[in-house]
Amino acid sequence: MANFRSDNESPVAEPIMQALLACNRGSAHAYGDDHWTDQLNQRLQEVFETSLRVLPLSTGTAGNSIALAELCPPWGGVLCHDHAHIHSDECGAPEFYNPGCKLVPVAGEEGKLNVETLAETLSRYGSHGVHEILPSAISLTQSTESGTVYSVAEIEAISALAKSHGLGMHMDGARFGNAVAGLNCHPADITWRAGIDMLTFGASKNGAMAAEAVILFGDDESTQQRWHGLERRRKRAGHLLSKMRYTSTQLLAYVENNLWLELASNANGQAQRFAQAVIDHPQASLAYPVQANEVFLRLPEAQLLAMQSLGQEFHLWPGAKDLARLVFSHNTSDDDTAALIASLLQSSES
Amino acid sequence: MANFRSDNESPVAEPIMQALLACNRGSAHAYGDDHWTDQLNQRLQEVFETSLRVLPLSTGTAGNSIALAELCPPWGGVLCHDHAHIHSDECGAPEFYNPGCKLVPVAGEEGKLNVETLAETLSRYGSHGVHEILPSAISLTQSTESGTVYSVAEIEAISALAKSHGLGMHMDGARFGNAVAGLNCHPADITWRAGIDMLTFGASKNGAMAAEAVILFGDDESTQQRWHGLERRRKRAGHLLSKMRYTSTQLLAYVENNLWLELASNANGQAQRFAQAVIDHPQASLAYPVQANEVFLRLPEAQLLAMQSLGQEFHLWPGAKDLARLVFSHNTSDDDTAALIASLLQSSES
Amino acid sequence: MANFRSDNESPVAEPIMQALLACNRGSAHAYGDDHWTDQLNQRLQEVFETSLRVLPLSTGTAGNSIALAELCPPWGGVLCHDHAHIHSDECGAPEFYNPGCKLVPVAGEEGKLNVETLAETLSRYGSHGVHEILPSAISLTQSTESGTVYSVAEIEAISALAKSHGLGMHMDGARFGNAVAGLNCHPADITWRAGIDMLTFGASKNGAMAAEAVILFGDDESTQQRWHGLERRRKRAGHLLSKMRYTSTQLLAYVENNLWLELASNANGQAQRFAQAVIDHPQASLAYPVQANEVFLRLPEAQLLAMQSLGQEFHLWPGAKDLARLVFSHNTSDDDTAALIASLLQSSES
Amino acid sequence: MANFRSDNESPVAEPIMQALLACNRGSAHAYGDDHWTDQLNQRLQEVFETSLRVLPLSTGTAGNSIALAELCPPWGGVLCHDHAHIHSDECGAPEFYNPGCKLVPVAGEEGKLNVETLAETLSRYGSHGVHEILPSAISLTQSTESGTVYSVAEIEAISALAKSHGLGMHMDGARFGNAVAGLNCHPADITWRAGIDMLTFGASKNGAMAAEAVILFGDDESTQQRWHGLERRRKRAGHLLSKMRYTSTQLLAYVENNLWLELASNANGQAQRFAQAVIDHPQASLAYPVQANEVFLRLPEAQLLAMQSLGQEFHLWPGAKDLARLVFSHNTSDDDTAALIASLLQSSES
Repeated sequence: MANFRSDNESPVAEPIMQALLACNRGSAHAYGDDHWTDQLNQRLQEVFETSLRVLPLSTGTAGNSIALAELCPPWGGVLCHDHAHIHSDECGAPEFYNPGCKLVPVAGEEGKLNVETLAETLSRYGSHGVHEILPSAISLTQSTESGTVYSVAEIEAISALAKSHGLGMHMDGARFGNAVAGLNCHPADITWRAGIDMLTFGASKNGAMAAEAVILFGDDESTQQRWHGLERRRKRAGHLLSKMRYTSTQLLAYVENNLWLELASNANGQAQRFAQAVIDHPQASLAYPVQANEVFLRLPEAQLLAMQSLGQEFHLWPGAKDLARLVFSHNTSDDDTAALIASLLQSSES
Repeated sequence: MANFRSDNESPVAEPIMQALLACNRGSAHAYGDDHWTDQLNQRLQEVFETSLRVLPLSTGTAGNSIALAELCPPWGGVLCHDHAHIHSDECGAPEFYNPGCKLVPVAGEEGKLNVETLAETLSRYGSHGVHEILPSAISLTQSTESGTVYSVAEIEAISALAKSHGLGMHMDGARFGNAVAGLNCHPADITWRAGIDMLTFGASKNGAMAAEAVILFGDDESTQQRWHGLERRRKRAGHLLSKMRYTSTQLLAYVENNLWLELASNANGQAQRFAQAVIDHPQASLAYPVQANEVFLRLPEAQLLAMQSLGQEFHLWPGAKDLARLVFSHNTSDDDTAALIASLLQSSES
Repeated sequence: MANFRSDNESPVAEPIMQALLACNRGSAHAYGDDHWTDQLNQRLQEVFETSLRVLPLSTGTAGNSIALAELCPPWGGVLCHDHAHIHSDECGAPEFYNPGCKLVPVAGEEGKLNVETLAETLSRYGSHGVHEILPSAISLTQSTESGTVYSVAEIEAISALAKSHGLGMHMDGARFGNAVAGLNCHPADITWRAGIDMLTFGASKNGAMAAEAVILFGDDESTQQRWHGLERRRKRAGHLLSKMRYTSTQLLAYVENNLWLELASNANGQAQRFAQAVIDHPQASLAYPVQANEVFLRLPEAQLLAMQSLGQEFHLWPGAKDLARLVFSHNTSDDDTAALIASLLQSSES
Repeated sequence: MANFRSDNESPVAEPIMQALLACNRGSAHAYGDDHWTDQLNQRLQEVFETSLRVLPLSTGTAGNSIALAELCPPWGGVLCHDHAHIHSDECGAPEFYNPGCKLVPVAGEEGKLNVETLAETLSRYGSHGVHEILPSAISLTQSTESGTVYSVAEIEAISALAKSHGLGMHMDGARFGNAVAGLNCHPADITWRAGIDMLTFGASKNGAMAAEAVILFGDDESTQQRWHGLERRRKRAGHLLSKMRYTSTQLLAYVENNLWLELASNANGQAQRFAQAVIDHPQASLAYPVQANEVFLRLPEAQLLAMQSLGQEFHLWPGAKDLARLVFSHNTSDDDTAALIASLLQSSES
């Protein structure tokens, strides 16, 4: 009986738990003045092949909100997909962190923003002076809420549009590892090299206990100023952890020896296995291409319920009766997926 | 060579680390819908001998800010000691969480607020209509920033004043365990029985990794409403942890078998040993009575520096050259304290 | 050469200017403790035939934002038309006044919200706990941004939906006078009797200098509490005018002898005259029914530009090349409208 | 029977009312795109002898809050006198406009800040990283809440301190005219020439109806950026008046022919006459030097009450039984002051 409700219901990956144990010796200076945090900065520069600064914290909502508040003035607008987590699942956190700011939801196929609709949306602004908000950033989710992944070219095109309008680029990387594993690319390819200014680098969903980080790319003077802003915003929101070593060590272990990509690859692979079973099934179909670790399954409601009654845990998707989301995790086993597939087959036999 | 800089530089107590390991099996529903969080609610009701609700989170600043935002309207005033952490050490977090709210710092001997100055402060409000802020809550720190502890009677008297003016009562319990251990009282005695509405219950400084909780006492309808507010405020601030079981299990282990009081007793006891050495020392003196796990040491600057050069880590206190703060932790050993005392003696010989 | 750009470009109606002169004698207590403000409260209770409280201020944006902040918690959602002024023309003011709150734009024909789409929108909320915002109010604009007017029955139906979901009802009445004149109804019919809790009662567009008011209907205990909130919110936003008498006297003169309805009737009547000319014109058409003082004119772009080059000032409407908005004011004269009609006819001859 | 409660209870000066009448002809573009506003910018550049930008609005609280929000990051601190209007009389407006910002009250003789205590206050910051707020601006009130006036040298000294610490300089000029008249200086002398970055230029207390302005000195690039911020902050707070011409014309008339200084001189002169009577009186004394239009009168409570029962309206000052504040206005007549003096003399005879 396995859980496909969400990857945030998965346990902590063993190497990360071991790292927590290993760092639990004696005292360490608080608030990030420790060698784990220093090392994390070094390691992530290697992983991303560039100068950057890392702001560890414990949730992705905090990371997204702090990053966006730094990218936008409090009268700014953030263009995001209309299913984006920041818009639909964070209870107004971005607006709370930056009072007066507005999220501007934009539609897009397969959970992705595209240059055309973004350009059309931006064209509606600019003629109404101080009466309208000022579009200031675009936020992409990678991988998306629909389990799809932006290609390098798609991100580059959107970034080019953003830069031409003076907007900043943010990436919500709650499932960033799954995207990198899915694309089999360098982390740099879909971030700073493609025009991303700030990344919310998620680890909790993919094996950490509670560890995320805002990564700020670059090292020029304006980056330095943004860094000061990020640090202050984290502190005054109560997100500066005193015993930071335990967060930094999670993130360190997460990237060490490519653990993160190994974990993500397992999740993605299990999703692919299940996706294939869906494709092969006469009544089932995929609502979106499966490019990371989520499968959106179309199946008559009765059969979805039958699968659940067989012990498979997953969410029926709001707004449609014949749609379910199944999320595969770093610890989903072959047996888990096999049992899930069996339940799919069995559901249609009854 | 030991660290007396702050108890938030101490490691995680072994039973808490073991609890983390133990709960790391399989999946668990996210966001607190798990049996560790349920159990935590049950256990804390036993510990505090009353109905209450628990809002686990990862920092004390978040706990304080969320609690105060719920106790006060956004035009409210929070009376607090002028050295209070919420006023001096949280970079405006309470004001960020409740825009327009003001902290009203009030002086008081030995780090404690007292009824007289609070009453005098309150008497300055009430005649200026909507032009002035509305005093709405009093926040006590227990134990205080000066290492002292409010007695039951002191808290009761302040609560009585608060109630008579329609103010709520908040307690910042970053070192709550040290206060309970110091007073050798029931936790209820210095909280709800003495008129406290909400407690920020700290565990990180006393052996947890990153675990605090807002505890809301009571179960009537207005408590229920406040609870809804607390839950929303936590979420929109990005403080609702997805893998909540790991926070709840820390707090559970913290109170299990009175671990928290055992840990706090060690810290307090070591502080007492050192305090006695200070009292016995011809040039040293205590700036405040030592009632918990902090010692404020008065000693000529040269000798303080000498102690540091002997390898003892502690903070020279801002604003005075001959004052240092030494914080004793759950893991401070007899040897650590003995070495500290030795450095004190040695510093005055040179 | 007349100005049909906006009614907020019109001058002050003579009786209101005379009232300003008349009240400019000697001193008067500040901040609304004056007999003009008292009288205004009395008069508006007569006008609206019920108990109510009046919060005078100088702009409609302030009125809308203060009212909505009082109707909604800071994690609330306000359903409004996707062309609503609060959403499109106030630079995030409602979100600034109530940080974390979100406006939820809802589509609707002819500038009006309708029960079906509102109900559909509401049905999407409620299953996602603290992760989603809490729908808390519906805001109607009366008359609408499209120059149409909600009927009594339409408002009642929307209010019934709102009440059944526990939502408050707000009306943005920037052109409330035009709506009342257009419907030829009692002001009560489209406000409290139809379920409206708070009205932003606009006067500036219809003849005042700078005078609006939030009107809070009712007098029970919860109304009293909301009133305290409104008063505080006005003050801390810097909208409590010291020399309030000059605002109150404008509002008093505005309703005295039905001046407001007389002024609105002129504006509406001129709009009707022009609308008839549009209907009669072979190439022109009305984008929306003309029910108040705004005409949305469809005409080939070249002809719109021709009208402008003939000296008629009006706004081409963003997003469409063949659409213009013409707003008629309290002081629009028969000659003004005749000249406008002439320019329409002339534009198509060239 | 005259009113010495506050100058904001005075009527509108006749030339300003005439200007309102004169500008009430036909239509004018809204939101400041009118020639009165253009002219105001020109005129104030002459009055202040420098490049500047003017942001008209209707209250001083709004002006102060908007200016300070632009001068400080949302984790900034504003040093101000502990009796400053922004701290004591604006219900948390500056904190509402800039959530997380803190006012840092500083004591000072005669209502004035001084370099020594400011420097001492600043010395307490800078060693505590992101845990403390960042001192970002100093706000002076000119003339002060105590009726005194900063000399040019005093302002220059404070500005020098501010600049050396990277802080901005704000002046709350609710009674700026009284200060200029009192010092008989150029407006430039106590503003930009003395290091002031932004001035809240008050007119309502000295003869306008509801007209204030934030004046931003300079024209370099960073000034340009601040200007964009000021404009946005005004709009989203609902302080951008649609019929701006009526505010701008008030301010224009206010400075035309030195009306403002003439009005202020009358107020100041009447205050001086009364102050002399106080000095000459055996039981009365001045709590502060009288340098503008306010007199703080020390007199036994019974006599203060006797003066009131003789029909003189003024405020007993909170916190002391034998202290009253008397404010003289642009329209205070010789007879008014004579009657007030008579009541003083009479009060001590009974």
